[in-house]
Amino acid sequence: MGLLIKNAKIITQNQRRETIQGDLLIDGGKIANVGRELPKEGVGEVVEGKGKIIFPGLVNAHTHGAMGLFRGYGEGLPLHRWLEEKIWPVEKNLNKEDIYWGTMMGAIEMIRSGTTCFNEMYMFGLRHMAKAVIETGMRAVLGKGVYDKSGERSTESEMKELEAKAGEIGELHPRVKMSVAAHSVYTCSEELLKQAKRFAEKEGLQFHIHANETRQEIFQMLEKKKMRPVEYLDSLGLVDSSSVLAHMGWVTKREISIAGKRGANVVYCPVSNLKLATGGICPVPEFEEGGANVALGTDGAASNNSLNMLETMKCALLMQKHRYWDAGKYPEEKAWDAATINGAEALGMEGGSIAEGKAADLVFVDANAANIAPLHKELRSIIYSINPGNITDVMVDGRFILKNREITSVDEEKIVEKATDVAHGLVER
Amino acid sequence: MGLLIKNAKIITQNQRRETIQGDLLIDGGKIANVGRELPKEGVGEVVEGKGKIIFPGLVNAHTHGAMGLFRGYGEGLPLHRWLEEKIWPVEKNLNKEDIYWGTMMGAIEMIRSGTTCFNEMYMFGLRHMAKAVIETGMRAVLGKGVYDKSGERSTESEMKELEAKAGEIGELHPRVKMSVAAHSVYTCSEELLKQAKRFAEKEGLQFHIHANETRQEIFQMLEKKKMRPVEYLDSLGLVDSSSVLAHMGWVTKREISIAGKRGANVVYCPVSNLKLATGGICPVPEFEEGGANVALGTDGAASNNSLNMLETMKCALLMQKHRYWDAGKYPEEKAWDAATINGAEALGMEGGSIAEGKAADLVFVDANAANIAPLHKELRSIIYSINPGNITDVMVDGRFILKNREITSVDEEKIVEKATDVAHGLVER
Repeated sequence: MGLLIKNAKIITQNQRRETIQGDLLIDGGKIANVGRELPKEGVGEVVEGKGKIIFPGLVNAHTHGAMGLFRGYGEGLPLHRWLEEKIWPVEKNLNKEDIYWGTMMGAIEMIRSGTTCFNEMYMFGLRHMAKAVIETGMRAVLGKGVYDKSGERSTESEMKELEAKAGEIGELHPRVKMSVAAHSVYTCSEELLKQAKRFAEKEGLQFHIHANETRQEIFQMLEKKKMRPVEYLDSLGLVDSSSVLAHMGWVTKREISIAGKRGANVVYCPVSNLKLATGGICPVPEFEEGGANVALGTDGAASNNSLNMLETMKCALLMQKHRYWDAGKYPEEKAWDAATINGAEALGMEGGSIAEGKAADLVFVDANAANIAPLHKELRSIIYSINPGNITDVMVDGRFILKNREITSVDEEKIVEKATDVAHGLVER
Repeated sequence: MGLLIKNAKIITQNQRRETIQGDLLIDGGKIANVGRELPKEGVGEVVEGKGKIIFPGLVNAHTHGAMGLFRGYGEGLPLHRWLEEKIWPVEKNLNKEDIYWGTMMGAIEMIRSGTTCFNEMYMFGLRHMAKAVIETGMRAVLGKGVYDKSGERSTESEMKELEAKAGEIGELHPRVKMSVAAHSVYTCSEELLKQAKRFAEKEGLQFHIHANETRQEIFQMLEKKKMRPVEYLDSLGLVDSSSVLAHMGWVTKREISIAGKRGANVVYCPVSNLKLATGGICPVPEFEEGGANVALGTDGAASNNSLNMLETMKCALLMQKHRYWDAGKYPEEKAWDAATINGAEALGMEGGSIAEGKAADLVFVDANAANIAPLHKELRSIIYSINPGNITDVMVDGRFILKNREITSVDEEKIVEKATDVAHGLVER
């Protein structure tokens, strides 16, 4: 039984971080075996993997999948003006169907760039996002976004929504999990933050929040609470190993130490931070030395403008070397960890490595390409050169959702067309 | 006669920087007409361009094409250690055949990522590089690299080589031009720099040099010449409108002013600078305000590790916004100019815009892709989201060298295989 892939180059991301030339046996949606020479006897199907590089499906640990609808809408603005003048006004027009189509398109973009699992945060349309995840065959943690500082939403309404959604989403599909996503310290009241976190703890859900993204946020918190964002969150008991803190570009050593001691998850989103010119660069090695778990995210496609984790991995590597003026800093192994096992850990999800018993979430690359060859010793340095055009197949739970460069799970052409119509309609509404 | 493409979206980069929905007529290797609705009468072939975005072939204004052979060899080192410990020792083993295969592979990578013209600098193998350019169908300026501070080469030998090559390369093909490429102020004597520049002037060639890349270079020059690199070059009469200064990451306002007054060409190579952690970020808007012409380059694939100008354009945009903590700085139009018309101007080459009478050097993108849609108003913002996988066709001088994602000019598979063998052999020699 099962599918045996022979003679591939495999970036396992297993405990010993081996990169091997060998075989891979997949059975029942799981990785049944990995080794230099696995027997063909009794195997259902044998596929030649020569010339292929296989790596674990990437984990996009912070994104807003439906925001691809606003890709290229409102260029050139800093975060707060971009949100207030462009994004929030058009988001008011969004309905759940729009979110479904936006998430479908985002999922396809992610699959084609090697992502199999993502950590979503959006303010509405959770069930429609779940539908898109289930249909495309991906894996996702869907953050029910809450905020209560804008008028139309209250602490009570948000908590009620959270409870309703937890019942609804939790049972939908094994590949979909819910999380509690508080938008930020500047859009959520202290009461909402505390109640939301307590709810997350009770339900065993991750607690996802934007934190320390801009100087404006820091200055506001210093003025209002006499604390920096991570200090404030920690004072409320909100920083622990199930907290996912996105951005963290402007942090003090004290905040790095808090995140480390609490074993928190930090998600670095280099492309979005640069594009919105937030200025701060998340000090990734310092977070890791301090004990935090660092993952990577693209952020939404409206501020990136892509959901391409390959690019995000390269950008993270480049920016960390630049940040410390040290070419040896943050070597490529680190970006692989961040985008695979660290991401899976941050989300409490399956996947992240190619090892016996793990979910078969895999990405296949055609290695005989002019932009990848000649493959000198260290296989993981391909992250500096590959692009989505090199990815031929993507598998989740042992099922190919991209096969020979074709999306197999859904009708890609129709989705792109529909999402385009929806998006054009939205900005004109 | 000619080929008419109907109903495409065209980023013209013409004098008014129009992006139009319309038609394109190509005849005799040139763009014969561009307009909203061109007549089909008398046209040889009509092709539907609906769903395509067409833009001018990109110009990679600083690269070392054959260095893809060393892609991934010697990761994690800063520039000078990387050169001295890794690259220069293996380059000693390089023969001209190796350079041919390396350049062939590099050319394919460039074509697939939308580059039609590149500015090469390499220390040997000029004729073999020219062969690769001619065969792949690209356009290139090939810099005959000179240096005389390393023992085996002298000022006299370098000048003799330059003269020999000028005769040989100049007449080879209309798509190939030679330039004089002095490696740097720290590897060339004052005498060689002066003689090489005089030779370039006499022959009407561009003068290409690495400048102001690292702090080490600056400190050396301050110590030895009591001048910074651009000041020193200017004191020798080496900075003018046919000078191409690559990198320029560490510059003073005085040097920016010199480059501007002389109308020099500056090539910003953001990815390589970050990867080698040189620290400095070329202040592009300041150079432009001062009067310099700024183009973009990938640098060699050994320090990038790709030759992907789409990525370089995005990286330039992100880094310039970051440098000034201003999301509105260096808008996408600027990166388009840098990678097209400014590049062509820096090299004194054809191409760079889609306008009547210009060479038909074109890139075709399938716009109905999940990572590109929905295309809100500003077409040029696609630079934040496209990747080489979206490019379907590339044309140089009216001839398709990539057609339906297949390289038509040469045998890609054989080249990648051959270059791989050569590269593996080299590091073991």
